[in-house]
Amino acid sequence: MTKTDQAPLSPGSIIGILGGGQLGRMLSLAAARLGFECHIFDPVWGGPASHVSRFETNASYDNVDAVLSFAKSCDVVTYEFENVPALTAKTAASANPLFPNAQALNVAQDRFTEKSFIRDTAKVPVALFEPVNSVHELKRAVKKLGLPAVLKTRRFGYDGKGQVIIKSEGDIAEAWKAMKDTPAILEQFVTFKREVSVIAARSSTGETAAYPLIENVHKNHILHTSVAPAAEDTGRAQGLAVQIMSALDYVGVMACEFFELHDGALLVNEIAPRVHNSGHWTQDAGCIDQFELHIRAITGWPLGDTTPAHKMEMTNLIGQDVENWSELASEPKTFIHLYGKREVKPARKMGHVNRIID
Amino acid sequence: MTKTDQAPLSPGSIIGILGGGQLGRMLSLAAARLGFECHIFDPVWGGPASHVSRFETNASYDNVDAVLSFAKSCDVVTYEFENVPALTAKTAASANPLFPNAQALNVAQDRFTEKSFIRDTAKVPVALFEPVNSVHELKRAVKKLGLPAVLKTRRFGYDGKGQVIIKSEGDIAEAWKAMKDTPAILEQFVTFKREVSVIAARSSTGETAAYPLIENVHKNHILHTSVAPAAEDTGRAQGLAVQIMSALDYVGVMACEFFELHDGALLVNEIAPRVHNSGHWTQDAGCIDQFELHIRAITGWPLGDTTPAHKMEMTNLIGQDVENWSELASEPKTFIHLYGKREVKPARKMGHVNRIID
Repeated sequence: MTKTDQAPLSPGSIIGILGGGQLGRMLSLAAARLGFECHIFDPVWGGPASHVSRFETNASYDNVDAVLSFAKSCDVVTYEFENVPALTAKTAASANPLFPNAQALNVAQDRFTEKSFIRDTAKVPVALFEPVNSVHELKRAVKKLGLPAVLKTRRFGYDGKGQVIIKSEGDIAEAWKAMKDTPAILEQFVTFKREVSVIAARSSTGETAAYPLIENVHKNHILHTSVAPAAEDTGRAQGLAVQIMSALDYVGVMACEFFELHDGALLVNEIAPRVHNSGHWTQDAGCIDQFELHIRAITGWPLGDTTPAHKMEMTNLIGQDVENWSELASEPKTFIHLYGKREVKPARKMGHVNRIID
Repeated sequence: MTKTDQAPLSPGSIIGILGGGQLGRMLSLAAARLGFECHIFDPVWGGPASHVSRFETNASYDNVDAVLSFAKSCDVVTYEFENVPALTAKTAASANPLFPNAQALNVAQDRFTEKSFIRDTAKVPVALFEPVNSVHELKRAVKKLGLPAVLKTRRFGYDGKGQVIIKSEGDIAEAWKAMKDTPAILEQFVTFKREVSVIAARSSTGETAAYPLIENVHKNHILHTSVAPAAEDTGRAQGLAVQIMSALDYVGVMACEFFELHDGALLVNEIAPRVHNSGHWTQDAGCIDQFELHIRAITGWPLGDTTPAHKMEMTNLIGQDVENWSELASEPKTFIHLYGKREVKPARKMGHVNRIID
């Protein structure tokens, strides 16, 4: 249900956000700049987003009554994570517009659905893949795609969780065991030149916008640094992201991660139907940031200026990295963003630092 | 009570803010970026700052128990307006550090105390002035300073309220009547080349920082636009602001408004012991903004980089100006900041727009 024929939401309107982590927090901070009020829905009380939001509902995502009453109290509902249950999304959407729509969630929640949609409907290239539901099917898929290949659970994988690399046929049995009998997908192992991503947006009016190409470096499967604008930005990646958004009748910010091959070809690795860690640099780049861009998109505002004034480097503060806040705060052209999480845990995203590097 | 010998406050600490208007709101948004939580104290429920703050206390400023319990719940207390009653300040400071200190409040609340302190203690030039407590004293002051001159209430004047220009001796009686028998101050009427201001900060560690000179244009006694960095910035104004902060053993951001005369001389018009409307452009200038600078100063953090990457123009959205939000949102290099005020009133500050103009 796109609101293309409706007026943009006025300042003072209430934006509902499913999920109260750091992405919800930064969405809420951006919404406040435009005069909107936010209502956070999260099973746990007092998370990062709730500290900076006017309203908070704490209930389970499968509590239909709570979700309905939450959605009714808002003018538009969005989310900060792609694993919003389908019933939650359907319930929210029955009361008020849900952006991005339920189809975007459906596609992003299942790697097989996602890759099939991107390849077959959006006509955007992805690495070769096969669905795998048994060790027998896995053997057949390995024969088809060759080795090495990557076996991944279809659902709930993130930051490298639920992934196994199969290097030789001897790895097959153990790799399947690691899937714990859940539906999986085998993907061709891609040798890439670099990992890049695009943050793009499509408004409820149909307007689209995108930032320059972002080059990402992961450590231990977690995003470590993003640099933007990346070198050799042909604009093709942004075009492919817009192609996917159009196919989904998408409203909001979408992140699209690509493998760039040595011959320059771009294969979509995955999409995220939300603001994304690799877009955090936009907060201090002298343009509308990805959080405000998302809020503008879902409220029908003009998307605004996404041309950065600077070259930026974003570095995640993972676990104990955050304890360097005092040194980081002394650096010139450096901006600290902390998420208000009380407990430092290894591999936990505690904050990030944006540096102007041009 | 400066905490020069103490460690900086860690992320997760609670910052108390007396006053819940737009300045408190933007302080709270900046504090959130650094992982702090905010507690707003305001007599009225649900004001602009409370929408984005974790905690809120609603009580009268003269409710000593409420102020004490509020201050005890925080790690440091600050304020967003200079008319915090002395007893409120004293009560808060008895529980936790109050920055800027009570002396800064005392000086800023009374135009005669302020000008005397700036001239006699800080040794910084101001226009000639005389205290006036009766029509008889007013006549004597007019004789001493000459005409035209400006008669102002000593306390609670802002945006031109409580001010009368005396052009001829025939105006004296009516001007005094307008003061309603409250203590006043007569100031020499200054013919200036331009109005400029400085936003500077002094940390609890003694570190100081300042932004480039700002050129301001007022309309109907309300700030209309600020442009920074202003032309012909000799750095003298920043030096004078630091001189005043040192004399006050000041901690936090201070604004200092000057008249720049045709011969280049600078006379202090007034100081504000807080973040200031003429510093709002810093939010989108590619440096640490005045709100974060204040939070850093009062928590003992390094002050960070105050060198703007751009030339900026800030325009206030007064009253119905805010209804242009949709057009403003379409402009390139333009950043909108709205305050979450429900009711549009003439002369009410509803938001502002920052534009990159270089």
